[in-house]
Amino acid sequence: MATKEADQLQRTRRSISYSLDELARIVGGEIIGERDITITGVAGIKEARKGELTFLANPKYESYLARTKASAVIANRDGESPRPILKVENPYLAFLKVVSLFAEGPLERYPRGIHGTAIVPESVTVGRDVSIGAYTVIGENVVIADETTILPLACVCDDVKIGSGCLIYPQVTIRERCEIGNNVIVHAGAVIGSDGFGYAKEGSTHQKIPQIGIVRIEDDVEIGANTTVDRATTGVTLIRKGSKIDNLVQIAHNVTVGENSVLAAQVGVSGSTELGSNVVLAGQAGLVGHITIGDGAMVGAQGGVTKSIPPMTRVSGYPAREHTFSRKIYAASTRLPELLREFKKLQERVEALEKGPGSGSATEDD
Amino acid sequence: MATKEADQLQRTRRSISYSLDELARIVGGEIIGERDITITGVAGIKEARKGELTFLANPKYESYLARTKASAVIANRDGESPRPILKVENPYLAFLKVVSLFAEGPLERYPRGIHGTAIVPESVTVGRDVSIGAYTVIGENVVIADETTILPLACVCDDVKIGSGCLIYPQVTIRERCEIGNNVIVHAGAVIGSDGFGYAKEGSTHQKIPQIGIVRIEDDVEIGANTTVDRATTGVTLIRKGSKIDNLVQIAHNVTVGENSVLAAQVGVSGSTELGSNVVLAGQAGLVGHITIGDGAMVGAQGGVTKSIPPMTRVSGYPAREHTFSRKIYAASTRLPELLREFKKLQERVEALEKGPGSGSATEDD
Amino acid sequence: MATKEADQLQRTRRSISYSLDELARIVGGEIIGERDITITGVAGIKEARKGELTFLANPKYESYLARTKASAVIANRDGESPRPILKVENPYLAFLKVVSLFAEGPLERYPRGIHGTAIVPESVTVGRDVSIGAYTVIGENVVIADETTILPLACVCDDVKIGSGCLIYPQVTIRERCEIGNNVIVHAGAVIGSDGFGYAKEGSTHQKIPQIGIVRIEDDVEIGANTTVDRATTGVTLIRKGSKIDNLVQIAHNVTVGENSVLAAQVGVSGSTELGSNVVLAGQAGLVGHITIGDGAMVGAQGGVTKSIPPMTRVSGYPAREHTFSRKIYAASTRLPELLREFKKLQERVEALEKGPGSGSATEDD
Repeated sequence: MATKEADQLQRTRRSISYSLDELARIVGGEIIGERDITITGVAGIKEARKGELTFLANPKYESYLARTKASAVIANRDGESPRPILKVENPYLAFLKVVSLFAEGPLERYPRGIHGTAIVPESVTVGRDVSIGAYTVIGENVVIADETTILPLACVCDDVKIGSGCLIYPQVTIRERCEIGNNVIVHAGAVIGSDGFGYAKEGSTHQKIPQIGIVRIEDDVEIGANTTVDRATTGVTLIRKGSKIDNLVQIAHNVTVGENSVLAAQVGVSGSTELGSNVVLAGQAGLVGHITIGDGAMVGAQGGVTKSIPPMTRVSGYPAREHTFSRKIYAASTRLPELLREFKKLQERVEALEKGPGSGSATEDD
Repeated sequence: MATKEADQLQRTRRSISYSLDELARIVGGEIIGERDITITGVAGIKEARKGELTFLANPKYESYLARTKASAVIANRDGESPRPILKVENPYLAFLKVVSLFAEGPLERYPRGIHGTAIVPESVTVGRDVSIGAYTVIGENVVIADETTILPLACVCDDVKIGSGCLIYPQVTIRERCEIGNNVIVHAGAVIGSDGFGYAKEGSTHQKIPQIGIVRIEDDVEIGANTTVDRATTGVTLIRKGSKIDNLVQIAHNVTVGENSVLAAQVGVSGSTELGSNVVLAGQAGLVGHITIGDGAMVGAQGGVTKSIPPMTRVSGYPAREHTFSRKIYAASTRLPELLREFKKLQERVEALEKGPGSGSATEDD
Repeated sequence: MATKEADQLQRTRRSISYSLDELARIVGGEIIGERDITITGVAGIKEARKGELTFLANPKYESYLARTKASAVIANRDGESPRPILKVENPYLAFLKVVSLFAEGPLERYPRGIHGTAIVPESVTVGRDVSIGAYTVIGENVVIADETTILPLACVCDDVKIGSGCLIYPQVTIRERCEIGNNVIVHAGAVIGSDGFGYAKEGSTHQKIPQIGIVRIEDDVEIGANTTVDRATTGVTLIRKGSKIDNLVQIAHNVTVGENSVLAAQVGVSGSTELGSNVVLAGQAGLVGHITIGDGAMVGAQGGVTKSIPPMTRVSGYPAREHTFSRKIYAASTRLPELLREFKKLQERVEALEKGPGSGSATEDD
């Protein structure tokens, strides 16, 4: 009832452990209680089990301090805990540091080598310590550099180049000729290099403009699950070094995303728009095509950007305006129904004045 | 030209039929015309063929009553029809009841057993009457309970648990250690357990925070096509019992969706936000992180929620406000251009008054 | 380390070339410089290499005219170029014409025949010159017409009909019984025929309404990457001839999209809404269910449409209003904070008037 194909490759799961004492030295904290405890993993305070280290940052979880099954707790103070406490200033940051110590990288987690069912033509260049999963299909002339992991059921089309240390999750499609840098992560279901959305109108029909460019993704980029990055009409759709893109984001043809920019989920960037470095686009923001977003600019959630934004500017709303101004308009708008009522009254008062002292007193004078 | 691998498993297509008389008793209606008719299926009034039952609810389709090829029609009154009519108060609801009688469940529709090309390691626990489709890849130590169906080309990663009676469509990815309850439906292309979007800023670069939590989906949940549900940073991203999530929805890390909540297509919920029970989020609504949406609250389509919402409250707009207030502002805003013009006029009238009766009449008095 | 399965099928890459002279006759331009040059490809002005033709349309790239490695440049005037110039009125359009000459169609790009690992049951009808890629799974009774290409890792479920000349990219799912016309392109990760989002409420739980309809996609339609098109509850979700749908779009059950309509990325159309012909929905626009959008109507980016729109009307904003009126409200709203301040002043002036000339002058008169 079970095939053995997945067993052809050797798994190399690490078994990692640290003493609490060692961890205290690494994160720079003070131990309240027993120091000679072996920590074999990390978990949240509700989920942690024996052997694991957890943390308390949110006062809401205070009551778990006494109840947690963890073997030790990172906190920012002493507490009524039956477990040893590793006392640090910022428990969450210290915990994340420890998490990184325990986190398996792809090299440990996924078996090295090419699964027997993966399709890898002779023309493909495969580096050292590469992992290619079951039923993954690699096209002709693809180049895959050292220590890259491609999980099952991915499709890498002809002439794609993938750098070293990358992690490509299942169900990803990377279309022909696209270029992926080093240490890039592409999450499940993402599509890199789909056709740009370009047509020439002939009468009432739309003739497809061939999309002959590519997508180039530089080093240290992360692309979210089911995100789509269209190839350029000609030239390159470019995601620069260190940018992080969340799930279900749409990057249209010929867009440039600058270095270390952050695009939250469901953002849409239209064709040929250029983002500078360190740009932040909050969730569901949308940008029209052919505009420029300056370095360090920020767009609020659901913001609709219709024109270029200077560097270091924060905008929000639809159409997006400078953020503090947007907030003023928003605040003012809450008084609009009342303003209309008061305006009507004021009109009547003015009318009364106009008729009033003049006509009114005139009548009285008669 | 064709492989026979798909024929290895036995198909068990049901052939179901009811007499119109039986159906009348089941849905509680009255038959106008012949009772002794055999119904073998259901369809819309335009598409129905001989042997099928259809319905008339929308007056727009009235003319089809005479033309339909169906063998009988559910309607809420007599009609000029050459076919027997099953007369009920609510034809659409009655029709849906009949549809359910004819609808094949996954147990009938999909062959039981593991396809010869599916990869199922020895360490996997597979229940009774499970179906695993062609080229589906199951990871180590996965547990799949009775009567669950996993269709072709899905990827279920290591240590995942899937309950009984589930239906996992093609191209789905379920990442490592996630937990799926009973009778859960996951539509094609959905990604369960992708990494949460979390980084620690170091200078201008973003260091990935390992996402070591999981996603837990409780019983009777439905997840739409190409929807993404991120795993928790630590702990659990939780979709509670009976919730229904449409296509292309983004659920971020550490979110909780309460019982029987309904999230329409393209909704986005940011990290650590908690939805109560029976919450309704209409299409394209977006919620910021770390807020609470009370039981029974509703967010209108495209609503942008920036702060917590009390139970049973309805909000809309961006930023989202109580719905009736939102509508008032909206109605008032349509009068804004006119208001600006009238305001100017009123200013002039006041100015005239200020100069006017005083100075003017003073002059006249002289 | 590499399987040879992908080599079973013969590739037939074309090697195309034209003389610059031939191209000048085809696009109708005048050559400045050498005519007898062989052009073997096309590229953007920055990326072009020897043998390739490029174009200059954007003045921003003017400096590349001297630097490009292209063998010839299409431009709208003479220039200081060491390369021959093909002078035309509209360089971009002329370039696109040339691109089409060089663009390989799917028949040239993808090997004909059924890959040895594709699953194609005996009951499937496969036309002439069809291509079915590695690990693609075809269901029972599927019909695939001539010259259609289905790339690797796609899933075509039972009883689907696909016309001729179609191109189905990797990771696509087409659910049972759906019908695809001729010359349809479906991009990677798209899901055609997922269940409509329909439930009947029973107490506080949601009972699934079986979705027994289909999706029908007519000729010459293009469906973007990771887009989802839900099947009808009963009847048909219909995408009419020539419509173009971008990435991450949601089309709900029983929607009709009229001929030659254009839906940009991340648009959402709710259940049973009907779009006319030549409708344009800009990015992230959302439409409620059960409304009608007239022929030639346009919805602006992020527009939220809550009621039917007459033909040839342009709307924008949320809730969407006629576009020029929307702009007026927007312009007026920027003056709202100032208006509130001025209104207060005017109230004070009126109050002064009311107390004023009357009471004041009365006092003076005494």
